[in-house]
Amino acid sequence: MRSVLLKEIGLLAMEDIPVPEPGPGQVLLRVSRCALCRTDAKMWSQGQRDLILPRVLGHEICGIREGTDERFVVWPGEACGRCVQCVGRAENLCEEMKILGFNRDGGLAEKVLVPESSLISVPAALADDAACLAEPLACAFNALEQANLSAGHTLLILGGGAVGLLIALAAKTAGACPFIVEISPEKLSKSEAFRNRLDIRAGASCDYGSFDVAVNACSADDTLLAGISRLKSSGCFCFFSGFTGEKPFPVKALNEIHYRQLRVVGAYGCTRAQMARSLPVLDEFQKEVRLLIEQEIRLGETAQGLSTVLAGEVLKIVVNMEA
Amino acid sequence: MRSVLLKEIGLLAMEDIPVPEPGPGQVLLRVSRCALCRTDAKMWSQGQRDLILPRVLGHEICGIREGTDERFVVWPGEACGRCVQCVGRAENLCEEMKILGFNRDGGLAEKVLVPESSLISVPAALADDAACLAEPLACAFNALEQANLSAGHTLLILGGGAVGLLIALAAKTAGACPFIVEISPEKLSKSEAFRNRLDIRAGASCDYGSFDVAVNACSADDTLLAGISRLKSSGCFCFFSGFTGEKPFPVKALNEIHYRQLRVVGAYGCTRAQMARSLPVLDEFQKEVRLLIEQEIRLGETAQGLSTVLAGEVLKIVVNMEA
Repeated sequence: MRSVLLKEIGLLAMEDIPVPEPGPGQVLLRVSRCALCRTDAKMWSQGQRDLILPRVLGHEICGIREGTDERFVVWPGEACGRCVQCVGRAENLCEEMKILGFNRDGGLAEKVLVPESSLISVPAALADDAACLAEPLACAFNALEQANLSAGHTLLILGGGAVGLLIALAAKTAGACPFIVEISPEKLSKSEAFRNRLDIRAGASCDYGSFDVAVNACSADDTLLAGISRLKSSGCFCFFSGFTGEKPFPVKALNEIHYRQLRVVGAYGCTRAQMARSLPVLDEFQKEVRLLIEQEIRLGETAQGLSTVLAGEVLKIVVNMEA
Repeated sequence: MRSVLLKEIGLLAMEDIPVPEPGPGQVLLRVSRCALCRTDAKMWSQGQRDLILPRVLGHEICGIREGTDERFVVWPGEACGRCVQCVGRAENLCEEMKILGFNRDGGLAEKVLVPESSLISVPAALADDAACLAEPLACAFNALEQANLSAGHTLLILGGGAVGLLIALAAKTAGACPFIVEISPEKLSKSEAFRNRLDIRAGASCDYGSFDVAVNACSADDTLLAGISRLKSSGCFCFFSGFTGEKPFPVKALNEIHYRQLRVVGAYGCTRAQMARSLPVLDEFQKEVRLLIEQEIRLGETAQGLSTVLAGEVLKIVVNMEA
């Protein structure tokens, strides 16, 4: 079957690989759509903590169960179900975690092998391309859950790409008041229709008082200081995107956390429960979330697509495996 | 009246100052005991964010209401009661906070003026010197509350001075399992009796697996990295003591917070409710907490006492105003 294989850091190839054989508890899914994520692009350009090579990339998957017409999205994790994290309802932190597109072959191929327990049914009226956004939207829900975001809270989102916009959508459904800071006028203009329909405020900067919660939806390491300085006392910074910068951090700036009883909470991935919650939201706001999908491409165009994602020139690209 | 006055950073003086006049809602307290805190010593040597000079130091106070024989400890805060923090039950973060010994005159004097609402009655069987520890023990309760420490949690305490030991006591009362790391053999030996009576484990290092919660009970900035690296995924580092170091912090080390969904929470001061909770604990463990009080000194010996505290050579010193 055709696949997009990351053979080594920097080397992406279209390769024919054997169709995998399902073992016990596994099912074969015919991939219908797979959305590209900035993490896919970063794995290609610089690697990632959980990446094992060679690897078929892709973890935002919608597909059809082989031999049926049932549509599913896929929780990209494979958790042991027994460790303290799994038992503690944080299966995304499983001590033996395997992730599709990271250390298991992912969805940028004609077919993908997944644990049956990772399948989540897609509502009938939800199109495959929008359904792919269940995974990133679930990650947004996870971030807001870690931060204890509640109705009436003000939320500062640092970064106005697809992820920042999905965090804003998740915040709106929680009754919170998001404000997106995005320094690129081009990106702001790309998201204008989405933001207007959902009544989400945004700007190149923000003088809008102080916030209950701030979240970084980009990897610039100065977002931590920027976020912390804009929090109310006892506010929370959610560390959603890993930092790629090299600048050392001034220790004394961290003292703000002490003096003002701030919280800094990490968020990484999502759980099945969070993915299940994201599907009705995508169904409800299907028109809006489809505004985020700027390009639908073929599998053979993936490398070009990932370059565009890496350059931050596009909100969301979905690979159409049926095209 | 006699007082210990910090006139400028580095300049501490015994001075006769006028007895303050109570205004509406205020009462005059005859100070019976005032314990010395490392923060008092740091204010003298290097200042502090909330310090306004000149200032009578001292915020761990037990006293008698003028004209009565009623004994009280004093919540050192003076909160507005109206701001978003006060209404949100975090009066220690009040936007207009004034603190005894920081920006109001404190307890290292014959008398101290306090808001009547800050008085908390001392149980009959609790001695004045032990009662002074209500404030630092309440700060320990606050730290563990911010960190959501629960029964069965393992807790790494970085620093085995008086504060680290009080945090361990608070953790024991919560049903948690504290382990103190203290690199100084002298300090470990000083606290041996206290630790043995309360069955608190301690050592110069700790290979005891990973922890649910870690807390820094000393101002060394490397405790953040040390604490984070010893946490279970989704564990919590409580930032209890402000950092005094100057070493910049490696940004990438912070990525652990992201990948493992760790939490870093600040703790600063305490609330009246936490002080009220600390008194029955001091009453119950009076024999043990009095083991922490290594010296009882007179007011005129305060400068020498603070030097000893700053050098970390003593667990706890209490100034006896009646001596």
